[in-house]
Amino acid sequence: MEPGDAARLGPGRAARALPPRLLLLPLLPLLLGRGLRAAASASSSGAAAEDSSAMEELATEKEAEESHRQDSVSLLTFILLLTLTILTIWLFKHRRVRFLHETGLAMIYGLIVGVILRYGTPATSGHDKSLSCTQEDRAFSTLLVNVSGKFFEYTLKGEISPGKINSVEQNDMLRKVTFDPEVFFNILLPPIIFHAGYSLKKRHFFRNLGSILAYAFLGTAVSCFIIGNLMYGVVKLMKIVGQLSDKFYYTDCLFFGAIISATDPVTVLAIFNELHADVDLYALLFGESVLNDAVAIVLSSSIVAYQPAGLNTHAFDAAAFFKSVGIFLGIFSGSFTMGAVTGVVTALVTKFTKLHCFPLLETALFFLMSWSTFLLAEACGFTGVVAVLFCGITQAHYTYNNLSVESRSRTKQLFEVLHFLAENFIFSYMGLALFTFQKHVFSPIFIIGAFVAIFLGRAAHIYPLSFFLNLGRRHKIGWNFQHMMMFSGLRGAMAFALAIRDTASYARQMMFTTTLLIVFFTVWIIGGGTTPMLSWLNIRVGVDPDQDLPPNNDSFQVLQGDGPDSARGNRTKQESAWLFRLWYSFDHNYLKPILTHTGPPLTTTLPAWCGLLARCLTSPQVYDNQEPLREEDSDFILTEGDLTLTYGDSTVTANGSSGSHSASASLEGSRRTKSSSEEVLDRALGIGDQPVLSRGTRLVFPLENA
Amino acid sequence: MEPGDAARLGPGRAARALPPRLLLLPLLPLLLGRGLRAAASASSSGAAAEDSSAMEELATEKEAEESHRQDSVSLLTFILLLTLTILTIWLFKHRRVRFLHETGLAMIYGLIVGVILRYGTPATSGHDKSLSCTQEDRAFSTLLVNVSGKFFEYTLKGEISPGKINSVEQNDMLRKVTFDPEVFFNILLPPIIFHAGYSLKKRHFFRNLGSILAYAFLGTAVSCFIIGNLMYGVVKLMKIVGQLSDKFYYTDCLFFGAIISATDPVTVLAIFNELHADVDLYALLFGESVLNDAVAIVLSSSIVAYQPAGLNTHAFDAAAFFKSVGIFLGIFSGSFTMGAVTGVVTALVTKFTKLHCFPLLETALFFLMSWSTFLLAEACGFTGVVAVLFCGITQAHYTYNNLSVESRSRTKQLFEVLHFLAENFIFSYMGLALFTFQKHVFSPIFIIGAFVAIFLGRAAHIYPLSFFLNLGRRHKIGWNFQHMMMFSGLRGAMAFALAIRDTASYARQMMFTTTLLIVFFTVWIIGGGTTPMLSWLNIRVGVDPDQDLPPNNDSFQVLQGDGPDSARGNRTKQESAWLFRLWYSFDHNYLKPILTHTGPPLTTTLPAWCGLLARCLTSPQVYDNQEPLREEDSDFILTEGDLTLTYGDSTVTANGSSGSHSASASLEGSRRTKSSSEEVLDRALGIGDQPVLSRGTRLVFPLENA
Repeated sequence: MEPGDAARLGPGRAARALPPRLLLLPLLPLLLGRGLRAAASASSSGAAAEDSSAMEELATEKEAEESHRQDSVSLLTFILLLTLTILTIWLFKHRRVRFLHETGLAMIYGLIVGVILRYGTPATSGHDKSLSCTQEDRAFSTLLVNVSGKFFEYTLKGEISPGKINSVEQNDMLRKVTFDPEVFFNILLPPIIFHAGYSLKKRHFFRNLGSILAYAFLGTAVSCFIIGNLMYGVVKLMKIVGQLSDKFYYTDCLFFGAIISATDPVTVLAIFNELHADVDLYALLFGESVLNDAVAIVLSSSIVAYQPAGLNTHAFDAAAFFKSVGIFLGIFSGSFTMGAVTGVVTALVTKFTKLHCFPLLETALFFLMSWSTFLLAEACGFTGVVAVLFCGITQAHYTYNNLSVESRSRTKQLFEVLHFLAENFIFSYMGLALFTFQKHVFSPIFIIGAFVAIFLGRAAHIYPLSFFLNLGRRHKIGWNFQHMMMFSGLRGAMAFALAIRDTASYARQMMFTTTLLIVFFTVWIIGGGTTPMLSWLNIRVGVDPDQDLPPNNDSFQVLQGDGPDSARGNRTKQESAWLFRLWYSFDHNYLKPILTHTGPPLTTTLPAWCGLLARCLTSPQVYDNQEPLREEDSDFILTEGDLTLTYGDSTVTANGSSGSHSASASLEGSRRTKSSSEEVLDRALGIGDQPVLSRGTRLVFPLENA
Repeated sequence: MEPGDAARLGPGRAARALPPRLLLLPLLPLLLGRGLRAAASASSSGAAAEDSSAMEELATEKEAEESHRQDSVSLLTFILLLTLTILTIWLFKHRRVRFLHETGLAMIYGLIVGVILRYGTPATSGHDKSLSCTQEDRAFSTLLVNVSGKFFEYTLKGEISPGKINSVEQNDMLRKVTFDPEVFFNILLPPIIFHAGYSLKKRHFFRNLGSILAYAFLGTAVSCFIIGNLMYGVVKLMKIVGQLSDKFYYTDCLFFGAIISATDPVTVLAIFNELHADVDLYALLFGESVLNDAVAIVLSSSIVAYQPAGLNTHAFDAAAFFKSVGIFLGIFSGSFTMGAVTGVVTALVTKFTKLHCFPLLETALFFLMSWSTFLLAEACGFTGVVAVLFCGITQAHYTYNNLSVESRSRTKQLFEVLHFLAENFIFSYMGLALFTFQKHVFSPIFIIGAFVAIFLGRAAHIYPLSFFLNLGRRHKIGWNFQHMMMFSGLRGAMAFALAIRDTASYARQMMFTTTLLIVFFTVWIIGGGTTPMLSWLNIRVGVDPDQDLPPNNDSFQVLQGDGPDSARGNRTKQESAWLFRLWYSFDHNYLKPILTHTGPPLTTTLPAWCGLLARCLTSPQVYDNQEPLREEDSDFILTEGDLTLTYGDSTVTANGSSGSHSASASLEGSRRTKSSSEEVLDRALGIGDQPVLSRGTRLVFPLENA
């Protein structure tokens, strides 16, 4: 009945078993539970109509109707909540109130409705759940019951722990507003995550890709490990104090570390967006939060999959550990591949058909292909949500360029609406769940410990990682940025969805309650404190993302001019620059021309013997656009170091210079006396009349450097 | 297992019981069935993890995974189908192929996949559905099963007829692609129907409202009755010949008449749209098909609700008959009210807030409010689909005017995409169902009889009704229009959804098979024949809907100049004109100004003592817009006769003239020497610089008429 019952997975299940229910729309567990039951009873009565007594029939029918009506009412409750939230958000936006974000608001309304449902409705109970037969030694998934000659089919709903048999007769309304936890994973998260991938500000994202990957992968792993260990200490303490009434293993602690490491700075980012705060900081935060969701999902699956052999199931086992690591890598790379492949297929289809003449068809195709990623990944045993994220990024990077103007806005708007509704739904459900969820385990020590642990866990990865990253970054991540990232460690939808997915055991229930409180606290307090924090940390706002080279860039200059650092930094920089150069030129010279209508013609980039193939793959538009050749939402990655581009027969070399001030100054100067070679460079980089002065890019001419 | 099992309703259930499962997203019965079972088995194994044998666990887990994967694969099948359909549609549109519409195509692909699934996959079967306990004399909706000390909860899935117990072990893949019939009603139809309501071409719809209502209400009733009686004859014949192996009552025949009376000329309308065929014919066909869907739903519910008292349950019973009529009126008016009320509430909310500054919020609100109509109607025991239709019409008529420009396109596009996906999904499912549905009852006599009956049923309402309507219409419905309407009696999604909703009894299964074949035949043959038919019937194409007064209107002049007819016609015309004038002026003077930013200020239309209220309700924009005062998607209804509008202090009278040629000619003339009084009229009618020369409108000046 409770969310956890439906997907009860003990700690130590295989990672694949995590998504048991599935797919796109088993939407309403209230429907699955009650609705199904109602339909079933209606159907049984229907079939038995002609020879059973009319009274019985009528009773079942009435029941079905009643249940149906209650389902409608409970869904209406949520819609009412969302409507209220929307209206209040409007009021807040209208009056420029920034201390409370829409998600925080949704939670408050959810809380209020939760209180009303909990204390305001009578505790009615289901009537006819009395038949019990004691047989066999194993639970079958389907029962055939012979009732005086007629056979009825029953499906297994879940186990009820012996102590709960009486409490099955619980408040009907509370049961109705309790959703199947898989709904969050299979219906509500995919549009949120896809939208995140699809709306990544690509230029700034790719420019900071290295740091983002470091924060997302290393950071999440560090955070998970530190929180897990701290919580294990807390659990030990609780055992000593006598506050722990059931088992709580080390793997449970690590699992908690994984789910609580998924940050979701939705409120912070909303304010950043509104105030046009620094774009690099935005890219770092957003990129980290998007990717660490994926990491947290796969990490938690891997921890669940950690099943040491033998009877002593909670000691360290190297084989099981490496199996877990293998599972992590396998699921992650598999999901990544799925997402990328579907994105690439969509790009090819939209490129080689003239679908863009029919935006409706194009949008529908785009939607279906993106959805199929999710299903494909789930069908292959990977993680659909992660696949959808990478599909979104690929779609934005390639397919988006092939879409018609109308489809671009259509797809963006479609996923924006879906994302908005899903996100606010999750947050209002969270508010509701605090009161309607029936198995909360409030443990003050655990909760306080968790708050301390997430603080330390975040500090332990932001500051050290930033330090190491700064060694390699030309544009250092300043102290104020680090503090802001530290501050923005909100927890949100992903942590909640991971926590509610399994609330069967005592440990998981405690984790769920704690996660809920952490989400509330961080969203309200941190969300409300973003604007003061921004001004206190002196982070500039009102930045135009396209013209973001400030005259004096205070945040990035903190670490500039350190002799030894810059020397070492140069080495690291060179290495990463090599990697990026490789990827960028491959993407720009081959992938973009193959998958989109942009980029240089393949006939110029591919070797001569591929001539025919190149001509087939290159779209005619490329030749037409050859002169202006610019991409909307341009995402050229000139993050570090020098970069050689071969375009047609003109070779342009842009060398990185170590003195950034002089470089930018000379660039400014050279812009004034715009030379012909610079025009070639501009064209080659596909930026035309766009300002070339983006902060991550240092373009200096060979002649000036020599 | 089959669709019908899940919602098995014998003939003669209460109308309310028709939607037993419900709501928005019990989407996939494959999920409900298999998915749930999988989750359940996973959950049971999870709970039992720590003390049951590892082997058993592993087996259940594997099973859960396998089931999950199969679910994904079957959904992927549908997505692949839709993707294929989209690509082929593009190809067809690209090459201007008109003989096959996308829905016909979707069915063909569905058929192909259905054949592959039916004959190409091995007949695997579920393994562990063996436990059966014989107890009690009644089926409970929930079972508690005590399995060696642990309690498992089971929910009733449905009855299995004794003969089918062995065939439960059927092809797993076929079961997987079989959807819960309620999915069609609660998920796929609402967006289709809402879109239909929201995209009604309002001007032409309202201009022909009388005829549309007549066709939809009287026509559907006549068609239902005639088809029902003819089919009863066919059934009698079958009994004599010995072709009928089970019961088939008169109410079953009437039910068949109701479901098959829901026309869905989607292919015809698509071609009309593409060729810009005559707008009045379009309005008549589209309006009829939209409204008769609503009528057919409610009619079929009422027929199901016809339950004579006593034992002789299939004789005529006046009380039961009038109860059915009452139910029809109750459900229809209730659903209508629900739809209109939610539409009006949305209009008020969008008018009195400045939500239009935030298109995302506005779109989300619009979506939620429209969805809540469906839930509200279902919660109150009305029909959600019907409510959604009227909500769509209200939203288009009022709310649309309050939306920001971006939200207008967003909402239109959103529902367009949903509609497109849902419609093509239904049609490809139909193709699939012909082979994967396991209980087809092909009865050649019944099928042939049904084809004859629907032909006669349509003829019996189109021609007589058109004759009577022509008595009252100024613009006669010509013979060619009547033939075209006769020809456009396609059956589609609604007939299918109504038929698949209940396939429990023999009679219903026969109806379902027959409906499926009728849909195939009409969509393919009639859809393909539309273009030739249009040219054969001499119906003009290439009409600009805004400038649709043809120099010589051949279709509407057929009946003009008939002395006795026109005399009688005048009387009827006067009556309907009075009714329309009343509604139009009420709508224009009060509803529009209250609910939208358009129309005359209330301060001028309301009596003086309502001054304060009028000032509160009138939006400031109205005063600003007072001079141009035009509405987009203008829908002024000047269908018949003269019309007096009071606007501010200028009174404009437009008298209908009987000689249409001279009227339009004089109007053309007067337009050239545009007098000041004409400008007043233009402004008063809110049409500004829009061409006033719409065919349904005869505007002649009092001075010219005098």
